[in-house]
Amino acid sequence: MAAPSHYLERVTREFSKLPGIGNKSASRIAFHLLKLGKGDIDTFIRSITDLKENIRFCSICGGISDSETCSICTDAGRDKGVICVVEGARDILTIEAAGGYNGLYHVLSGLISPLDGVGPDDLNISTLIKRCGEDNLSEIILALSPTIEGDATTLYLASLISPIGISVTRIAHGLPVGSDLEYVDSATIAKSMEGRVRI
Amino acid sequence: MAAPSHYLERVTREFSKLPGIGNKSASRIAFHLLKLGKGDIDTFIRSITDLKENIRFCSICGGISDSETCSICTDAGRDKGVICVVEGARDILTIEAAGGYNGLYHVLSGLISPLDGVGPDDLNISTLIKRCGEDNLSEIILALSPTIEGDATTLYLASLISPIGISVTRIAHGLPVGSDLEYVDSATIAKSMEGRVRI
Repeated sequence: MAAPSHYLERVTREFSKLPGIGNKSASRIAFHLLKLGKGDIDTFIRSITDLKENIRFCSICGGISDSETCSICTDAGRDKGVICVVEGARDILTIEAAGGYNGLYHVLSGLISPLDGVGPDDLNISTLIKRCGEDNLSEIILALSPTIEGDATTLYLASLISPIGISVTRIAHGLPVGSDLEYVDSATIAKSMEGRVRI
Repeated sequence: MAAPSHYLERVTREFSKLPGIGNKSASRIAFHLLKLGKGDIDTFIRSITDLKENIRFCSICGGISDSETCSICTDAGRDKGVICVVEGARDILTIEAAGGYNGLYHVLSGLISPLDGVGPDDLNISTLIKRCGEDNLSEIILALSPTIEGDATTLYLASLISPIGISVTRIAHGLPVGSDLEYVDSATIAKSMEGRVRI
C-alpha cells in the first residue's frame, strides 16, 4: 500500500537510519512522536541541536567534552602515570562504566585499516607520542578491539612507544566472565591459553 | 563517573525515552549523531517538525493522513461494504502490510479499560455507529488485540452494532502460523479449539 502519510514515512525513514533501529522500531517511534506534546518534541529536538552546536573534543585526549579539556584530563585525583589508548570516544564511557581504572585516556579516532584507506597518519598518533614525553608517565595501556585492525594498530603503537622507554601493555584477550567454555569460539580459547597467567 | 558531556547525556536521555530504545542504544545513537554532518541533522530534525506540524487524522476513519480524508477512505477501488475496527492508527499499517484486506477502517483510539479510566465515551464509537448507517455496509470486522480490554471492547461493540442489522465478526484467535504446538500457551490452544473450523 502507499504510506498513509508522506510525513510519517519520512520520520520513519530518518529514524531507521540510526544504528540499531530497524523499520518496525522506526515506525513505532514515529507513532510515539505523534502522541507527544509540542513541549516534549521541542525538548527532544533542542537536545540534538545543542549537542551539535556545543559539544567539543578534549584538546588533550580527544574525548568528548563540554569545554576545552575534558573532566578526566583535568581531574587532579586521576593517575597521570597511565594512559589508556582507545579507538573511539565512546570506549572511554564503556571503560569508566566498568570501573576500576583511574588513569587518563587517549582517543585514536579509528584503527589502522589499509583496506579502508586508513593509515597511521589519519589517527591521533602524533599527539599520543607527544604525550609520551610527559613527566611521570610510566605505562601506556592499549585497549583496542581484538580484531585484525585492532591487533595491527596495537603492534604498530607498541613498536613506536617501546623505544621511548615507556612500558606498553595490552588488555587481556580471553574468556568473557560468565561464559561457558563449551560455547566459546576456538580463536578465543587459543588466545586464553596463550595469555594464561600464573595463580 | 560524571558524564563527559552534559549535552551528550541529555541526547542520550531523550532517546532512551523512545519506545524500544534502552540506555545503551541511546548512547550509541548519540555518538552516531556526533558523526553526522549539519545537513543530515537538519534533515532529521525537519522530518520530526514537519510530522508534528502537518500530520492530520482522517475525518472519516481517524487514521493517519496528510489531508482531510485518508488515501484508503478516498480510494474508489476499496470495498465500501466492510469496515475493520482497530485500536490505533498503526494497526492499519500492520493489516495493510499483511495484504489481503481491501475494505475500509475505523480507528477507536484505544480500548475500554475501566482500570485506566477509559470508558466507551472516550473512544471513537459514536462515529462508528454513525458509519453503520451508510448504504452498502454489510460487515464490521473487529480486529482488536486478544487481551481483556480487547475482548471487553469487542463484546461491547458487538452488542451495539448487531441490533442495527449489520454482520459483526471478530478476527480469529488461534495458533500463529509457523508455531509449534508444543510451545504455544494453553490459553491460545483453548482458543484455537474453541474456534475450530470445518475443513
